[in-house]
Amino acid sequence: MARLVLKFGGTSVAGITEIENAAAKVATEDGRGHKVAVVVSAMAGVTNQLVEYCRSISPLHDAREYDAVVSTGENVTSGLMAMALQKRGIQARSWQGWQVPVMCSDMHGKARILEIRTSDMEERMESGEVAVMAGFQGVSPRNRVTTIGRGGGDTSAVALAAALKADRCDIYTDVDGVYTTDPRIVPQARKLSKVSYEEMLEMSSLGAKVLQSRSVEMAMKHGVPVQVLSTFAEPVGSDLPGTLVTKEEDIMEQQLVNGVTYSKDEAKVTLVKVPDKPGIAASIFGPLADGNINVDMIVQNTSADGKTTDMTFTVPHADMQKALEILKNSPELKGTEIRNDEKVVKVSVVGIGMRSHAGVAQTMFRALAEKGINIQVISTSEIKVSVLISSEYTELAVRALHSAYGLEKHQKLA
Amino acid sequence: MARLVLKFGGTSVAGITEIENAAAKVATEDGRGHKVAVVVSAMAGVTNQLVEYCRSISPLHDAREYDAVVSTGENVTSGLMAMALQKRGIQARSWQGWQVPVMCSDMHGKARILEIRTSDMEERMESGEVAVMAGFQGVSPRNRVTTIGRGGGDTSAVALAAALKADRCDIYTDVDGVYTTDPRIVPQARKLSKVSYEEMLEMSSLGAKVLQSRSVEMAMKHGVPVQVLSTFAEPVGSDLPGTLVTKEEDIMEQQLVNGVTYSKDEAKVTLVKVPDKPGIAASIFGPLADGNINVDMIVQNTSADGKTTDMTFTVPHADMQKALEILKNSPELKGTEIRNDEKVVKVSVVGIGMRSHAGVAQTMFRALAEKGINIQVISTSEIKVSVLISSEYTELAVRALHSAYGLEKHQKLA
Repeated sequence: MARLVLKFGGTSVAGITEIENAAAKVATEDGRGHKVAVVVSAMAGVTNQLVEYCRSISPLHDAREYDAVVSTGENVTSGLMAMALQKRGIQARSWQGWQVPVMCSDMHGKARILEIRTSDMEERMESGEVAVMAGFQGVSPRNRVTTIGRGGGDTSAVALAAALKADRCDIYTDVDGVYTTDPRIVPQARKLSKVSYEEMLEMSSLGAKVLQSRSVEMAMKHGVPVQVLSTFAEPVGSDLPGTLVTKEEDIMEQQLVNGVTYSKDEAKVTLVKVPDKPGIAASIFGPLADGNINVDMIVQNTSADGKTTDMTFTVPHADMQKALEILKNSPELKGTEIRNDEKVVKVSVVGIGMRSHAGVAQTMFRALAEKGINIQVISTSEIKVSVLISSEYTELAVRALHSAYGLEKHQKLA
Repeated sequence: MARLVLKFGGTSVAGITEIENAAAKVATEDGRGHKVAVVVSAMAGVTNQLVEYCRSISPLHDAREYDAVVSTGENVTSGLMAMALQKRGIQARSWQGWQVPVMCSDMHGKARILEIRTSDMEERMESGEVAVMAGFQGVSPRNRVTTIGRGGGDTSAVALAAALKADRCDIYTDVDGVYTTDPRIVPQARKLSKVSYEEMLEMSSLGAKVLQSRSVEMAMKHGVPVQVLSTFAEPVGSDLPGTLVTKEEDIMEQQLVNGVTYSKDEAKVTLVKVPDKPGIAASIFGPLADGNINVDMIVQNTSADGKTTDMTFTVPHADMQKALEILKNSPELKGTEIRNDEKVVKVSVVGIGMRSHAGVAQTMFRALAEKGINIQVISTSEIKVSVLISSEYTELAVRALHSAYGLEKHQKLA
């Protein structure tokens, strides 16, 4: 008998049929004798509609009222899910954020979960009742409804699992696990049975949209094992049909590289002939940070003439115009040519095995060179290597790397 | 400077445009220096959709979960209304039932409002903020969301007005007041400027759907003046453009008859040759009451042979089959023929003036006789006379009565 948190995203509860299907999954775990808490998102499309209502009244709406409005979608689903479970003869009740309560900071629209006081919920779960919590929401110290940001449902689920000291948090979604890469590009992509928090975190922030980075961070911090699995597939022959995101130590067979990811949400900015003097980087990136623009990959060339240098970095697509505006108005950059390129993609390889094995980056560079792909910028961390390349090569590069690291087959570290 | 509660029903907040229009009405009252609280319904159609979700999961759903689901529509509107007011530079905030709190009984789906604790709300209203409360909902002693029954928005508004000791409760709807009769039948129908609680109560329960009976009862009990007015018409030349429902004493010019109403929600049941013995009425109506069937008009003929009698009464349309079932299974009615007729309508005239003036019923009977309309059953109260007639005469009867009492022109009591 374990304690489990099951989380169903928007497509998994898109309509009554899907809610009943999700209830069947819950019933299976309940039938195994587990104590189950469920976390639900709004029915697919509902939150977008509510956000649209708010925007059409005013783009500058009160974040407290926005939260009061957009949090209602999850309340609907939690009530309907409780009904669907009761129909199957399972005791169940819905919990809205303020009822649990899920105590949040009052940063409306992107609140942090401070504490989930689960004593009432646990008491009822112990008596055999399934708890169905509305995800994405909580209550502020001022007794107002807060939301924890788009995609916050995963974070709600992991936070509840941590508070309940659950044995596992199962995230039901429309894919059946975490893959070595995007199967739409590489049909041979292989589903990973296990992946470490660190790898998942890199993969999430590098563009694999299976789990929200924040929820992975929280799972890692609290040591909650998270399984990503499909709501729509029938599990066959395994207790854990999806991908388990867990501690590095719990993964017996470490892979050198576990995934190839890509992100098209990048734009490249190049500053030609920047004055090469102390403090210049700060004077460029300070104003961008003040403008709330997240600069990612940065390369500074060595100075050829000792007076000027070239500098290249990436910013999110959506922020590029704003970044150019800021740079053009910078007094330090007078006389500097500013170039930009949106047709770039960041391709990355991720794997914990890199920590102890050399040559990973070299394999990457060689594989790309063989296909004639020019690398514009390189950045590395302990467990990933990212390169910026022209976006027209996206599929070619991803396939070449997937093959170069032999990801289509289960490989072992030597 | 007065304290006002403004209530907007579903059609008055059907979409963003309508919400902004309603906000303009609130702004007008706020601009006059009044302290304003607003009560809103769900956007038209939303509650029906939510009810449909619940029904499609199970017709026998948990009423607590039903309440959690269907109450969300009002939460959406209250947040959007607060935003729309803020956009006009008016301080405003939304209040969900549990936030006020609106303390309710735990009769889920049809809870009673026990108490509205308005101290927090009043404090903020005094500081110049408009309170926007989600109607139709409250919180139970067990901290669950409750709803107070369909159409409960009016009741929420009047209850809030009573708790705030408001000077008036304005119910904005899609008609511009209470009419002497249905203007779709009688184009000369006249809008009443004032009507008493007692008359309004009779008119509401007799089929005029302008206000919910329960809200009128509550207004009468707490002495809250209620104005019914249109959200869509621009008021011209009057502080009170709608109909004021108020105390009898506050209405200077009493009318003999103030309204002609009709209800098609009636079905007639006739029992032929009922044994004429003591206790027979109790043995008929007891089982119907136990079956939760509301019997309305009752007529018992005098016995011709001293042994049997005929008995006629009405029940709501929806309950007729159930009523027939109960009667057929009654041992006391063996040998009694049971007839039923759904093609009937109850037409009523209502007026406080009846209390002190004779001849009102006579005028009614004569007017109907002149048109050749046969009266099947008659029932009277202190301030109304109702007759049951064949439904094919509905429009003819209503027009004849409207004219017979001279309702198209402003008449004075002699």
